[in-house]
Amino acid sequence: MAEPAPAPKPPPRPVSIAFDVMGADHGPAEIVRGAVALTLGNDEIHAVLVGDRAAIDEALSQVRYNAERVAVHHAPTFVAMDEKPSAALDAKPDASVMVAARLVRDGEADALVSAGNTGAGVLACAKHFGLIPGVRRAALATVYPTAATHGQKNDPFSLILDVGATVDASADDLVAFAVMGAAYARIISKNLDPTVALLSNGTESSKGPPRVVEANAKLGLLSGMRFIGNVEGVDIPKGTADVIVCDGFVGNVCLKMLEGVSETVMELAKYAYKEKLLWRAGLAMLSGGIERIKEVTDWEQYGGAPILGFDRLFIKAHGRSKARAITNAGKVAAKAVANDLARAIQDALPKVG
Amino acid sequence: MAEPAPAPKPPPRPVSIAFDVMGADHGPAEIVRGAVALTLGNDEIHAVLVGDRAAIDEALSQVRYNAERVAVHHAPTFVAMDEKPSAALDAKPDASVMVAARLVRDGEADALVSAGNTGAGVLACAKHFGLIPGVRRAALATVYPTAATHGQKNDPFSLILDVGATVDASADDLVAFAVMGAAYARIISKNLDPTVALLSNGTESSKGPPRVVEANAKLGLLSGMRFIGNVEGVDIPKGTADVIVCDGFVGNVCLKMLEGVSETVMELAKYAYKEKLLWRAGLAMLSGGIERIKEVTDWEQYGGAPILGFDRLFIKAHGRSKARAITNAGKVAAKAVANDLARAIQDALPKVG
Repeated sequence: MAEPAPAPKPPPRPVSIAFDVMGADHGPAEIVRGAVALTLGNDEIHAVLVGDRAAIDEALSQVRYNAERVAVHHAPTFVAMDEKPSAALDAKPDASVMVAARLVRDGEADALVSAGNTGAGVLACAKHFGLIPGVRRAALATVYPTAATHGQKNDPFSLILDVGATVDASADDLVAFAVMGAAYARIISKNLDPTVALLSNGTESSKGPPRVVEANAKLGLLSGMRFIGNVEGVDIPKGTADVIVCDGFVGNVCLKMLEGVSETVMELAKYAYKEKLLWRAGLAMLSGGIERIKEVTDWEQYGGAPILGFDRLFIKAHGRSKARAITNAGKVAAKAVANDLARAIQDALPKVG
Repeated sequence: MAEPAPAPKPPPRPVSIAFDVMGADHGPAEIVRGAVALTLGNDEIHAVLVGDRAAIDEALSQVRYNAERVAVHHAPTFVAMDEKPSAALDAKPDASVMVAARLVRDGEADALVSAGNTGAGVLACAKHFGLIPGVRRAALATVYPTAATHGQKNDPFSLILDVGATVDASADDLVAFAVMGAAYARIISKNLDPTVALLSNGTESSKGPPRVVEANAKLGLLSGMRFIGNVEGVDIPKGTADVIVCDGFVGNVCLKMLEGVSETVMELAKYAYKEKLLWRAGLAMLSGGIERIKEVTDWEQYGGAPILGFDRLFIKAHGRSKARAITNAGKVAAKAVANDLARAIQDALPKVG
């Protein structure tokens, strides 16, 4: 008997992204410009701009956008980059990032993008969003460029998490981070069967502190994930795995090492060979390129750092983001919403009992 | 009243170093060559060669040395590089590294140098040496090249510890590591007042897991040390501190990242610019220099990695050490003995109650 023909796929529902436009390095206008660029595309993305209304209106008067897809929510205050997140949010419950998080909680937007104070963003989410059932702690993830390429699209980036949300992760937290990272790579990087590894001080499953040894055993038993075991520090720049999992303390140290290291290697080269003219010439020829390397390694340009584990997505764009980075962060957020990232994570978590 | 004139300084007493000559990548002859080179110098250094007597005698027949300063101790077995340390030592109590450690314990040599299996070396020391009073756990330290220079001699290396001996360090362990690292920098690098920092996920003293926050507070109260607070991952390649302290898990991950990263940066540069001819030319001019960078970053050439915390010093040279690296490791060991490193560490540790 013939199956009935499947119903035609419905057009994607409109997705609405809340942008906290305040507190970033280049001011509200840069964030507004990046956000409303999304309203000119074919995908039906709406931008909800949260912050000082006068600043937003001024910025909007300078750019082209689709007014049907832009909404403005005034927030009277914001958290500056150098403020202590917890104290600042206590003092300013109506800071822009809090107002934006409440809009997402209340369903007036589907996801949150901010280029402001990272800690304040994570705290605002923790206050207003729920954790995905089965997740005990959120993780901050980031993509970074590697020597190897990844997935069917030969993406030159790996994903590493947690890089700073949870400094003391348990074995179960590390397992949840692995599930969240794999789901993100599948949906956002279109890497259908990403390899996942645990960062340790040796490749053997017995290596590492107890939490890492236990997480290795649990991940080995988890179905539906291509877990390739432990990797070492050298595998981070190599890109041995598509997703690398660690606690937020180790991940933060590694991420900041990566950020500083290309520059330092070139400094070291100059230091070691400053007397060699041939070398000087070689370095001069490369110097424009060092700028380009910095651009490639400035992975914040490639969509920002997602906070994973909450039932709503928060993308933290770098404080120094330009409009293009904000647009990219909005696109990533919209893709995660359209593909129901939170549901994908929940379905892939190990079932208790 | 005039002080009596100080007695003339006695000549330095002879120092005897035990070399485990087995289990290294280039075979016993390379280790023997490096060890006996020390017996030709002006400092009165004696080399005790431990391993297969036939192999040692064969190697000695090929090189110049001062026979009055060379002794040979036969060991019937050894631990290979790929063996599990604990099981191997149980099965082979007369492995060369165990025999050498016993000679040091019994005062027939003052310090131990090995280029063999690292874990076996650490275990052999743990079995035969005592910990310095006040030290609860040993740490593996290593020097590595940085962008900044250090100390009065503009040394281009920083010291980082622990890089793998103790995966779960307490706050008190981290404090002891700081004391040990500072003493080592003073004595070996002749850096009279080294800066010491704690590796964390932020520079504020409140950043990090509880053990790091507690260690920061304790180090801040410790007299006789130039503690500069927390540093971040980016400060490792920069060389912000002369001595960087962390637990063995984080340190091992960071060290292995450093080892792999210069190569990967250049790979990335090629990947990003392979179409640009000018770039190709620049890279070709640099390619010989990449070899030189690798040499500079091959810090094992600069004396090996000391295991600190035991009452006797163990220098772990890299498995792929050539004779020069072994000679350097022996020199470092002799300097530590002549300056009584263990006593300096003990004196600098915080006094309990």
